Amino acid sequence: MARKTLLTIDDVNKMTSDQFIDVFGNIVEHCSLCAAAVWQHRPFQDVHHLHKVVCEFLDNLPVNGKQGVLRLHPDLAGNVAGGLTLESHSEQKSAGIDSLTLDEKGKIQERNKNYRDKFNFPFVICARKNKKEAILEGLELRLQNSNEEEVTNGIEQVKLIALLRMLSIVEE
Amino acid sequence: MARKTLLTIDDVNKMTSDQFIDVFGNIVEHCSLCAAAVWQHRPFQDVHHLHKVVCEFLDNLPVNGKQGVLRLHPDLAGNVAGGLTLESHSEQKSAGIDSLTLDEKGKIQERNKNYRDKFNFPFVICARKNKKEAILEGLELRLQNSNEEEVTNGIEQVKLIALLRMLSIVEE
Repeated sequence: MARKTLLTIDDVNKMTSDQFIDVFGNIVEHCSLCAAAVWQHRPFQDVHHLHKVVCEFLDNLPVNGKQGVLRLHPDLAGNVAGGLTLESHSEQKSAGIDSLTLDEKGKIQERNKNYRDKFNFPFVICARKNKKEAILEGLELRLQNSNEEEVTNGIEQVKLIALLRMLSIVEE
Repeated sequence: MARKTLLTIDDVNKMTSDQFIDVFGNIVEHCSLCAAAVWQHRPFQDVHHLHKVVCEFLDNLPVNGKQGVLRLHPDLAGNVAGGLTLESHSEQKSAGIDSLTLDEKGKIQERNKNYRDKFNFPFVICARKNKKEAILEGLELRLQNSNEEEVTNGIEQVKLIALLRMLSIVEE
């Protein structure tokens, strides 16, 4: 969520681990382990340095860990029992997911289901960088890939989502 | 938390990933990634098979991930801003942490602080398997170790805590 005042990187570097986990715990959706793991690499030179360390953490996870990261994400346009995180809600809204026609919503939900049935994790895409048309097309295309390709594609989207979330917390 | 009726391993093997993450998301404290990562290895033969996969996941984390797992744990006898999870509260109570004298509480908090200052993660011990005297002694002894030794010791305690939490959910 955009803060009224962005933090400086000095503010970030002074945080205790508990403060850091509290502020950055959802830069990777529902995966506070990511923030907990990267805190020790401070001082960060800037937000892009912090992002680089987050990307390395994701890249170094075992493959079931990467798939687990994807599995912690909500379905696009899906019904989430526990509700969407504030970040996901705002991102899906910016892609126009909240203004889908019934037909579009049906198509996305059907393709999501096919995607999850094939890969055993949900389709993850950076909604702030893709409008609903691109998402519908992306779902169809990515459904053709191998599991390995989709772990890679999904994790690259997670990295992009994390960067945008960080940029709404820390000044560039 | 002990359930009135324990799940069978068949119940567990039938769960969707969302159901599984909901039920097992805190077998490793605040680390739902662990449940999200191991779900795909079902069917599990029994609870010990599930535990083995959880242990392998923890062992395969990069070292900052292991330290991050420890960092998601509360301080023993500490003041936790967000409150203890139900599991931690019950475990600390069984160790007698809720009935410390002021002097004992002071000692634990001081040693905890020294431990955290040295290692950059909190002292993690399975409170259900250790009474307060053993915890006080363990804190003093483990404070002498290297960071690498304490990552190993801490993760072994996390595995033991996870097993006891699983045994309060799934029948043996």
